[in-house]
Amino acid sequence: MATSEHDLPKCDAAVSLAFSVLGKRWNGMIIDALREETLSFSRLRRTVTGISDAVLSDRLVELANVGLVAREVQSGPPVSVAYSLTPGGSALVPVLDELGAWASEHIPVAHD
Amino acid sequence: MATSEHDLPKCDAAVSLAFSVLGKRWNGMIIDALREETLSFSRLRRTVTGISDAVLSDRLVELANVGLVAREVQSGPPVSVAYSLTPGGSALVPVLDELGAWASEHIPVAHD
Repeated sequence: MATSEHDLPKCDAAVSLAFSVLGKRWNGMIIDALREETLSFSRLRRTVTGISDAVLSDRLVELANVGLVAREVQSGPPVSVAYSLTPGGSALVPVLDELGAWASEHIPVAHD
Repeated sequence: MATSEHDLPKCDAAVSLAFSVLGKRWNGMIIDALREETLSFSRLRRTVTGISDAVLSDRLVELANVGLVAREVQSGPPVSVAYSLTPGGSALVPVLDELGAWASEHIPVAHD
């Protein structure tokens, strides 16, 4: 009985939902980068070290579609686009702080 | 001056460290699956829905190397291997609960 399918623990659906977004490289870092201020695409790219233009562009579309990041076109000239956190994105910030505290204590920094 | 490199916000190093592990698909779900009990490889695979044997195997090596999951060979017969959370892995569980609560409130469930 102990090995029947009914006895298997199930991954928590809410945690699974969280990682459907955050378990994708860069998404957590993009939200973290926007925690304090609205940023243009180019400033965001320089803040999220190592991300490419194409990947950042894709991730911003995804984060906007899921309602965590807002995209606002600012009339120019020159026309520019600014990105900021929605209330849903902002609600993640305190949890990011806890993740950071956990990582600082429990994950060794890699040395290449 | 406002656009100089010195004025750019920097991604928090601790948050970046957290996502060096959790921003990789499956890692958060594997830790979540082990939150309550030690599991064999095969039970773990059935708990983390959708993961393949090869990917689970790779992830378990990584999570063990970073000190979040412990691997214990249990003498048989048959010999088996059991996986459990280390204290560092267990320390993530309350943060996973907060991530789950955040996701439930702010991320729409995808319907394909």
